[in-house]
Amino acid sequence: MSPASGLLTPAPPWETAEWFNSEPLDLAQLHGRVVVLEAFQMLCPGCVSHALPQAVRLTRAFGDDLAVIGLHTVFEHHEAMTPVSLKAFLHEYRIPFPVGVDAVRSDHPAPVTFSRYRMQGTPTTVLIDRDGVLRGQKLGQVDDMALASAVTRLLDGAVPPAVRATDGAVPPAVCAIDGTCT
Amino acid sequence: MSPASGLLTPAPPWETAEWFNSEPLDLAQLHGRVVVLEAFQMLCPGCVSHALPQAVRLTRAFGDDLAVIGLHTVFEHHEAMTPVSLKAFLHEYRIPFPVGVDAVRSDHPAPVTFSRYRMQGTPTTVLIDRDGVLRGQKLGQVDDMALASAVTRLLDGAVPPAVRATDGAVPPAVCAIDGTCT
Amino acid sequence: MSPASGLLTPAPPWETAEWFNSEPLDLAQLHGRVVVLEAFQMLCPGCVSHALPQAVRLTRAFGDDLAVIGLHTVFEHHEAMTPVSLKAFLHEYRIPFPVGVDAVRSDHPAPVTFSRYRMQGTPTTVLIDRDGVLRGQKLGQVDDMALASAVTRLLDGAVPPAVRATDGAVPPAVCAIDGTCT
Amino acid sequence: MSPASGLLTPAPPWETAEWFNSEPLDLAQLHGRVVVLEAFQMLCPGCVSHALPQAVRLTRAFGDDLAVIGLHTVFEHHEAMTPVSLKAFLHEYRIPFPVGVDAVRSDHPAPVTFSRYRMQGTPTTVLIDRDGVLRGQKLGQVDDMALASAVTRLLDGAVPPAVRATDGAVPPAVCAIDGTCT
Repeated sequence: MSPASGLLTPAPPWETAEWFNSEPLDLAQLHGRVVVLEAFQMLCPGCVSHALPQAVRLTRAFGDDLAVIGLHTVFEHHEAMTPVSLKAFLHEYRIPFPVGVDAVRSDHPAPVTFSRYRMQGTPTTVLIDRDGVLRGQKLGQVDDMALASAVTRLLDGAVPPAVRATDGAVPPAVCAIDGTCT
Repeated sequence: MSPASGLLTPAPPWETAEWFNSEPLDLAQLHGRVVVLEAFQMLCPGCVSHALPQAVRLTRAFGDDLAVIGLHTVFEHHEAMTPVSLKAFLHEYRIPFPVGVDAVRSDHPAPVTFSRYRMQGTPTTVLIDRDGVLRGQKLGQVDDMALASAVTRLLDGAVPPAVRATDGAVPPAVCAIDGTCT
Repeated sequence: MSPASGLLTPAPPWETAEWFNSEPLDLAQLHGRVVVLEAFQMLCPGCVSHALPQAVRLTRAFGDDLAVIGLHTVFEHHEAMTPVSLKAFLHEYRIPFPVGVDAVRSDHPAPVTFSRYRMQGTPTTVLIDRDGVLRGQKLGQVDDMALASAVTRLLDGAVPPAVRATDGAVPPAVCAIDGTCT
Repeated sequence: MSPASGLLTPAPPWETAEWFNSEPLDLAQLHGRVVVLEAFQMLCPGCVSHALPQAVRLTRAFGDDLAVIGLHTVFEHHEAMTPVSLKAFLHEYRIPFPVGVDAVRSDHPAPVTFSRYRMQGTPTTVLIDRDGVLRGQKLGQVDDMALASAVTRLLDGAVPPAVRATDGAVPPAVCAIDGTCT
């Protein structure tokens, strides 16, 4: 993950159209808690096979100390991944944490929150500290140990080092903003 | 799988609304070929993690000797798994074989082909021989070796024994007609 | 696997020093049965993680129709993989099938049976038909479906095609006769 | 893991007969560093498939901040897991960290260090802080995230909570002191 190097960057506010598994949430409400934001698309294979199961493991490993939040941020096949489809997806895959639907402007294919965080595709894992500061963001697979270590340091008020990327043996399975999934 | 026990049962005809990766197909056109029909729903976790990857492995192991056909047979969350969503799903998951969309009657939740085969849920794997005879059908996970052996016997014109179910260590991950996925 | 191409090659006789899980066995006793011979070393990682579990799956999928036989054929670290160590290994890993210890000549590092089959390393999977004819042999990982299909054809008296190698995504994890394991 | 609850317990000294991948090491030399001691047997299936790969992942995730040490602690099949066999095992499985061989008294089947830590079997994962205090010990599988979090807290000088056990879906694959491996 690219850590906040030197200057502290406040995490941009989220703009969402709808929420599942929760009342509407925004970052201000989560002030005081460490947040992992998992940006995904329900038809992105790497999100389904890796990132969402990892987010569920985070909820199990850290319990209520950590706020795990999903962001359904669709930048392709919009008509295939509507909130109606997402709702069934979350039910069938038993996703337990709150999931917000990223807002879309009619004049732009990339969703609003996605653009504010300058995301390049899905899955993207975002770390935000108790003060709402953006502390890490990474496209693609993140290693379980590296992620758990970074989360622990945020929980304890320490500065996490950059999260190490998973070694090359694991396929990235990333969907990029240009519509290609690899 | 429940093999054709004694009396030969012709595989019921398929009734489909739409096809992807192919011109419209029916069983008559496939006469002379061995067919594996993989009945699935795009939001059924066991279909995505096990049955569809297994169907892709079948195409690799047996090549053109075998006709691997998908049947998208939605009996729940109909509005979440429309053909528009299915099309994007097949693209993102790189499903290479023909997939038909099971026809739905407005007065019945279970699709037509699903009902004709008396399926109980998804995934269901169906074996049909060169003469269009139904030779095996099983709900849930099928073992790779058992499936490959049964397919080989149909290709060679021999009678396959009942396919052994996978041992209990593997979770079934089945979606049943009553709407529960386990 | 390199199939018997044209000319039929009798499988060379085995020369073994000791057996586990069985009385001493030779090929002549197995005449009339299809045999899968799994040549391995107990400290070869690819044998432990892939080839031996696959051999156990074969026993489950084919039952008594098939004779699955292990051959412990040590060509490196001889003093580390003695019969005493092998016995504990077979117990701890719950290997259920007969395992013979390949004979060693004091003047040659490669064991006798290993050399007769011109093996290049471990794991090597060997297919022998009911008449004792060598029908296939492959170093490294073999795909479950391809192997089950080939075995089925031998059981049914048909000629198996060459077994397709596993695609490149799977690490070979092979120990070669020059002592390198990759 | 059972954390140091209230009273601080110094980690008992190690008594070893031999070392691989390192000069002889003792706990005093490691004072000032956080230590994960992975107690294993080379023929314990759960050690080979889970605990040792996890220990290698620890070295990758934490680098030189953490001292990962193996302890080969044989309490059964002594003649099958001699240092000669262990040496070949460590080479073939490419274990990169120091491994000590637990000392054995002729009058007792359980090794000395194993007994001092009151271990019940293998694998056992032990956490020791920079001051040589025993901070956690667990038989069987430990979850990657929980372990990485506990290690991070020791590195940062914080008190780790009890490490959560892996959920029941994962087979323990433990070898107990009574000789049974499950």
